Amino acid sequence: MTVYYPNGQPFKNSFTSVGKASDSGVVYGHRGMTLEEDLNVSNRYYIETDQAVIYKKPTPIQIVHVDYPKRSAAKITEAYFRKASTTDYNGIYRGRYIDFEAKETTHAHYIPLKNFHAHQVEHMKRIKRHGGIGFIIVKFTQTAEIFLLDSDYLANYWVASMKGGRKSMPKQLFMDHGHLIPQNYLPRIDYLRVVNKVYF
Amino acid sequence: MTVYYPNGQPFKNSFTSVGKASDSGVVYGHRGMTLEEDLNVSNRYYIETDQAVIYKKPTPIQIVHVDYPKRSAAKITEAYFRKASTTDYNGIYRGRYIDFEAKETTHAHYIPLKNFHAHQVEHMKRIKRHGGIGFIIVKFTQTAEIFLLDSDYLANYWVASMKGGRKSMPKQLFMDHGHLIPQNYLPRIDYLRVVNKVYF
Repeated sequence: MTVYYPNGQPFKNSFTSVGKASDSGVVYGHRGMTLEEDLNVSNRYYIETDQAVIYKKPTPIQIVHVDYPKRSAAKITEAYFRKASTTDYNGIYRGRYIDFEAKETTHAHYIPLKNFHAHQVEHMKRIKRHGGIGFIIVKFTQTAEIFLLDSDYLANYWVASMKGGRKSMPKQLFMDHGHLIPQNYLPRIDYLRVVNKVYF
Repeated sequence: MTVYYPNGQPFKNSFTSVGKASDSGVVYGHRGMTLEEDLNVSNRYYIETDQAVIYKKPTPIQIVHVDYPKRSAAKITEAYFRKASTTDYNGIYRGRYIDFEAKETTHAHYIPLKNFHAHQVEHMKRIKRHGGIGFIIVKFTQTAEIFLLDSDYLANYWVASMKGGRKSMPKQLFMDHGHLIPQNYLPRIDYLRVVNKVYF
């Protein structure tokens, strides 16, 4: 399925995965979609239906060298991935600032805290302090369950791990304090339905 | 002056300019700083002083090829600049979602509308509709004056230009309906002082 912008241009998702040499950006059906791809399509749907304006930020890149071939586009010939200092997703929903990070785990019963960075945890604390909504979305790939969990839980586990506590968040935490996100055809990951319930 | 993160790491600004082969990201004094660099330092100051959480988004890059040298970081060897579908800056301030685009003009009396893209104008309309604060920051480099102007004015000039109207926004518009932003040592571009006045 190709999703189109209001101006008729096909939707090119911003997914640029380490290890994938290239992708055209066109979304083909629902075969082997990653959490990130599904969220991009869901966010596009929310925008098209005027429910929210939430985007994934581009991957931060450190550019070292750019070539300028005659009569064609500038070509980056040397660049490196950089670590993000914020979360990947932000935007506005029902007048509120929304901010979240999304991760997959292949482990059946937990997600390692190393999936997140200190800067991201600090960023989400700031967001909450300034009146925004902050959470994480975690997909347990073995069961394809996707949970929304308020970022305060991540912050608490983060602090505890610094003091010698466990280095992961158990799935039980998500089952007890998180919220299972309904998955449909459109939107594929209907996390705003959960946001309605939890934050409004 | 090097600005430091709370964790002691030096602040690396995310400025990646077409035409600059590289930059270390370290900010040296105030010599020949671009509007973007000054805004990055100002935003960092707002974060450090816990006034707001506003960032410039990374430049969107289409990655085509990545090399994986042994024992060193993944190296992007072919990539291209992409046009942003949103504005460059967003975040949260006093509980409100903030969204803006920043541009410089070398023209004394106007800024060409071609500095903006249709997607950005549409994006800012959506932001306003959902209860966010949207504006543009424009620097007239000949006089070093920097103005904040509500994004509705851009939207109106955009629509008019589509109907055959002028292809630029006159400086007089900024003087009549915009707000001159105070420039200091820290923050260099104190646009939140104007936001306080205009939106709260």
